[in-house]
Amino acid sequence: MKIAIDGMGGDNAPQAVVDGVVQAIEENSDIEIYITGPKDKIEAELSKFNYPKEKITVIDATEVISPNEHPVMALRKKKDSSIVKALDLVKSGECEAIISAGSTGAFLAGCTLIVGRIKGVERAALAPIMPGRKGNFMVVDAGANVDCKPSYLVQFAHMGKIYYEAMFNNKSATVGLINIGAEEEKGNDLTKNTYKLLKEENLNFIGNVEPRDIPKGEVNILVADGFVGNTVLKMYEGSALSLLGIIKDEIYSAPLISKIGAALLKPVFKKLMVKFDYEEVGGAPFLGVNGICIKAHGSSDGKAFKNAIKQTKIFSEKKILKKIQAEIGEKN
Amino acid sequence: MKIAIDGMGGDNAPQAVVDGVVQAIEENSDIEIYITGPKDKIEAELSKFNYPKEKITVIDATEVISPNEHPVMALRKKKDSSIVKALDLVKSGECEAIISAGSTGAFLAGCTLIVGRIKGVERAALAPIMPGRKGNFMVVDAGANVDCKPSYLVQFAHMGKIYYEAMFNNKSATVGLINIGAEEEKGNDLTKNTYKLLKEENLNFIGNVEPRDIPKGEVNILVADGFVGNTVLKMYEGSALSLLGIIKDEIYSAPLISKIGAALLKPVFKKLMVKFDYEEVGGAPFLGVNGICIKAHGSSDGKAFKNAIKQTKIFSEKKILKKIQAEIGEKN
Repeated sequence: MKIAIDGMGGDNAPQAVVDGVVQAIEENSDIEIYITGPKDKIEAELSKFNYPKEKITVIDATEVISPNEHPVMALRKKKDSSIVKALDLVKSGECEAIISAGSTGAFLAGCTLIVGRIKGVERAALAPIMPGRKGNFMVVDAGANVDCKPSYLVQFAHMGKIYYEAMFNNKSATVGLINIGAEEEKGNDLTKNTYKLLKEENLNFIGNVEPRDIPKGEVNILVADGFVGNTVLKMYEGSALSLLGIIKDEIYSAPLISKIGAALLKPVFKKLMVKFDYEEVGGAPFLGVNGICIKAHGSSDGKAFKNAIKQTKIFSEKKILKKIQAEIGEKN
Repeated sequence: MKIAIDGMGGDNAPQAVVDGVVQAIEENSDIEIYITGPKDKIEAELSKFNYPKEKITVIDATEVISPNEHPVMALRKKKDSSIVKALDLVKSGECEAIISAGSTGAFLAGCTLIVGRIKGVERAALAPIMPGRKGNFMVVDAGANVDCKPSYLVQFAHMGKIYYEAMFNNKSATVGLINIGAEEEKGNDLTKNTYKLLKEENLNFIGNVEPRDIPKGEVNILVADGFVGNTVLKMYEGSALSLLGIIKDEIYSAPLISKIGAALLKPVFKKLMVKFDYEEVGGAPFLGVNGICIKAHGSSDGKAFKNAIKQTKIFSEKKILKKIQAEIGEKN
């Protein structure tokens, strides 16, 4: 398969991008990668490695869209940006997938405007996977659509379930609705009306899930509007980081014996820090668009890019796009 | 001052309630407490203690409203419940404050329907204080109003600021708007319109606060609609508990040396567990109603009830109700 990657997206671009691409090429003989970005910069990075030249193509792009720019305006103005060039490769059919660790706003807007939505999909949704205590869970939508209708959330559930079951070889993933009460009649207008629709669908819907229970990781797919989904995602990340910080503060002011304990526990804490410093397990797929679109975390390193590339490969092999087209298409 | 307390509210009622009341009476000579609930049960608990009899009055109430009942329906049907009897004491002016650890829904509905809102207040809001890394922060509204207008959130900010500054002797508490982006134009319709209003007010408004940054505890008062506020509160609590659980799991499967480390760190973890097992620092005030209404946590023990009683005393001494009346009244 052919994959386009935004060579200038992320805090560590283009070094980390090129590093990840070369690693991925080594491990997967059946992929080809197009890196977009300033040709000289990308090639300078590539020159540090030995790799089969025919597997990597550099597509020159002189501009970069920063996270501070207005997404739609920037996309319109900067036609020669690394992100737009990568999106064009998917639009034209040259590439099957795109990966970017750049501006989330520009990526989501670009996927919708340039790649386009699957016919019948009302809104595309960002669907990161998070580490929970008992298992991984997916939040969908995690921020692409701040104001939602109940029918959007029903589609999010279907798309999320298809992705989750394919990626984790799970045949009966559970779906829950994020809500501030367990009973059907709890919540706001959106959740009350969404509940009614979800329980009529063939989704293994287990009902409302209160935010307090989300990190337990007992429910696989959690649907919400993008505002609430993003709040859940970012509170989880922020709480974990702050809590580890509080533990650190407490240890700092604790007696020597506790400090020794902390030193002995260092490997455990380190493992946790890594787990939570990345917003997601791998990149977050943008589900509902007409291509494999993966948003990698802004702080991705080479290994994270390599994993994101591997993820697009599974996405393709499991025919997730076709499954979404079939599932949503047949209802529309 | 006279305080009404719901003798049957909470997981450990009536034992913990009575225990806390007796402790509070011992420490504060200027308070009198009315405990509502089945007279025989409450008196049986009271008989275990020595205390000045004239300080505690038992008000017989034969019914109890459980958290599973529909709040408004239950309030109408169960006129002889411990919560309704306690609310009646505030409505009649017999008591200045009410504390309950019972059903949150019944408490909030009861405060609004029986005690009533302060003139000019559009909606009353639940305002718990949470422990952050750098300091405590308040979330307002934490669940009383799931669908909100921008003007409600502006009032939440004013009421929260008055309470926070009085309770913590802070003269320049900062106000932030919970939003999924830092820039003014980010978010949904509610946050965009609320931002415009908040920046015109004399509130020490510092702008949007992204959920990832909330647990840092750098902003004092965080306003949101009740759905988002409750999600933030419960995600914080749930993340902390799950994270400590994950650490436990990791230690369980770690080598002996890490287990020794964990044993040495036990006092630090214990401190953290206590901090987070309670949803709030003290009880959560329900701001905007015409009385001092404190929602104690369902799992409150004697000490927690004692602290909630102390909290109502400060609420009264600092004349927070009068300040809210003056602030909101002058604008309406």
